[in-house]
Amino acid sequence: MHEKEIDNLIDKVLAELAGNSPVMTRQHSIPGSSQQLASMIDHTLLKPEATRQQIEQLCREAIQFGFATVCVNPTWVKIAADLVHNSTVKVCSVIGFPLGANTQCLKVDEAKRAVADGAQEIDMVMNIGRFKSGDLDFVFTDIRRVLEAIKPAHLKVIIETCLLTDEDKVAACIVAQQAGAHFVKTSTGFANGGATGSDVALMRRVVGDSLGVKAAGGIRDRQTALAMIRAGASRIGASAGVAIINEKI
Amino acid sequence: MHEKEIDNLIDKVLAELAGNSPVMTRQHSIPGSSQQLASMIDHTLLKPEATRQQIEQLCREAIQFGFATVCVNPTWVKIAADLVHNSTVKVCSVIGFPLGANTQCLKVDEAKRAVADGAQEIDMVMNIGRFKSGDLDFVFTDIRRVLEAIKPAHLKVIIETCLLTDEDKVAACIVAQQAGAHFVKTSTGFANGGATGSDVALMRRVVGDSLGVKAAGGIRDRQTALAMIRAGASRIGASAGVAIINEKI
Repeated sequence: MHEKEIDNLIDKVLAELAGNSPVMTRQHSIPGSSQQLASMIDHTLLKPEATRQQIEQLCREAIQFGFATVCVNPTWVKIAADLVHNSTVKVCSVIGFPLGANTQCLKVDEAKRAVADGAQEIDMVMNIGRFKSGDLDFVFTDIRRVLEAIKPAHLKVIIETCLLTDEDKVAACIVAQQAGAHFVKTSTGFANGGATGSDVALMRRVVGDSLGVKAAGGIRDRQTALAMIRAGASRIGASAGVAIINEKI
Repeated sequence: MHEKEIDNLIDKVLAELAGNSPVMTRQHSIPGSSQQLASMIDHTLLKPEATRQQIEQLCREAIQFGFATVCVNPTWVKIAADLVHNSTVKVCSVIGFPLGANTQCLKVDEAKRAVADGAQEIDMVMNIGRFKSGDLDFVFTDIRRVLEAIKPAHLKVIIETCLLTDEDKVAACIVAQQAGAHFVKTSTGFANGGATGSDVALMRRVVGDSLGVKAAGGIRDRQTALAMIRAGASRIGASAGVAIINEKI
């Protein structure tokens, strides 16, 4: 994929969106039960001060409630993988997190190591600075190299929507999609803004049905989680998973 | 260094501090000129959305004002090193930044790569979660391994004071010092708090004259910078370096 082709594709999708052509038409199915909702949640603990005890609790909760994954920093992946080993819960590791500004080699090595430690899903942060510098080819290669290094694990690309214009968001989703990512994800939760319904809807329109969309950052209750799913999210990242599931409907 | 020895040392220093024995007596010399002040500043740009153009400007400013280093994310180290090549300005790369929660291997590889790309100073984030879990031996090894991998480059260890109790701060400084770090540093600037005079003073009391103390996070004017130096800081990390130097005295 060369920069020129990516640029053309971005122009095409932007024109489609401007013309309101039906880029995506599928009705999103809203989870009917708490169990279904739980299976769409990455149970997340990424605070730097999180202790081993808290990671262990996260894993126990994920098994108890049937969350999709536990989403943790690389230093905890091996411990988490051991704990969820005999369950349906997977381990999701963040990579290049939360700034996305380390080198390509390091992102690749970090992702490989996470998979070796037991991660089955990888949430990497796009190189936002290179993206903002207009170097889409760099961003594409950054994603592609990680993807190839972790096969068959799944890759989510965090585009950090709060730092992007709407045009940027469209371009970032296309680059991630063209590079082969399995998901685009709104936010790290460490910048100045998290997921919004309108960003999720825009991202879903761009990637269509072929990719997942993960909404993360600031999702603290069931109403917000369901609003994100209605907008097109197929996965929710939240540290409040237990509260979301336990909430009275 | 074994955990037991570190624990004993921490107890000893805490007892000394409680007894107000004169752990450190040297009078800190305050820079008399803007030039001297500039030479104590790491000119810093770590925002994920920083562009190549902004990094280039950072380097030009560092040369013009005579800052100690430019402090950048790993993705920009090579570019920055090329730009400051024929000057007194060094390149400082952050590592494991800003969460400190990646694996030891990755911190080592990331630091090695940064040095290979031209960094002469490395600001690594301590593994705060392992520290909070009481695994001081892990934290010690984490620092020691990076230190050995980057020789003769200098290592600063960010302890992220806003996440630590005063006892934690003392223990973290001792672990960093025993591991051979050249500096202890207050903050990443990405957590909920930055440098405070009292934290800098405490850190200086603990490490004495043998180590540098870097104050970073929220230092936006000359008055604050000088207050940090009076409290014991020998280096200032700031993105507002130009404003600090240009300020009318």
